[in-house]
Amino acid sequence: MMKINQPLTLQEVEQVFDAYEKALVGNDVVKLDELFWDDAATLRYGATENLVGYEEIRAFRLQRPSANLARTVTSRHITTFGDNFAVANITFTKEGVTRIGRQTQTWVKFPDGWHVVAAHVSWMDAK
Amino acid sequence: MMKINQPLTLQEVEQVFDAYEKALVGNDVVKLDELFWDDAATLRYGATENLVGYEEIRAFRLQRPSANLARTVTSRHITTFGDNFAVANITFTKEGVTRIGRQTQTWVKFPDGWHVVAAHVSWMDAK
Repeated sequence: MMKINQPLTLQEVEQVFDAYEKALVGNDVVKLDELFWDDAATLRYGATENLVGYEEIRAFRLQRPSANLARTVTSRHITTFGDNFAVANITFTKEGVTRIGRQTQTWVKFPDGWHVVAAHVSWMDAK
Repeated sequence: MMKINQPLTLQEVEQVFDAYEKALVGNDVVKLDELFWDDAATLRYGATENLVGYEEIRAFRLQRPSANLARTVTSRHITTFGDNFAVANITFTKEGVTRIGRQTQTWVKFPDGWHVVAAHVSWMDAK
């Protein structure tokens, strides 16, 4: 039976999630690349772009301006399923943006550690 | 070793994905409810709302107008990891909307079948 939120698994995912957030805000491109699954099936839907495959995501990071990446996480929900699978969902705010940001990440544990296999970042629209 | 896109697992997920899409467009609320994981940890970030927990998602569906739910899927990527985990990502268009829609779903296979544990739907912004 698959266990939900086993403490050790949850702790592992919280650590990689925190590492990702720190790397994002600091624009540590090497670390961000390392935390994404190096595969053609990896996807990242960003606020203003849809990226399919590790190479497209990597190219995007390399050309992105490093300014104004700071954000404040306003809610965080991490859930693990068994030993190797997790979802991490946050809402966030950013200086100069009135809309609420949302980020969904799906994490999978491979032999070399946890990687994001799909990510979706967006600004919520008004109703 | 975790297998990626095992044919039988992929087929199972494609079937539940298609069932979800059909239920969404037809506003089959009972089926949509059935396909989401009945748990307080289930999340759905929609274009104009952030819903946390199965009950919030269910209440949202019940009050949502059933008109104008039709959409055209313009790309689809489903990837399975082992026997019990999958991500499904699509882009879509909708009549009367010029922006590109994106939907990310994370699926987990429980003893009673596959359920969405996290979903994120958004309209892409201009750069």
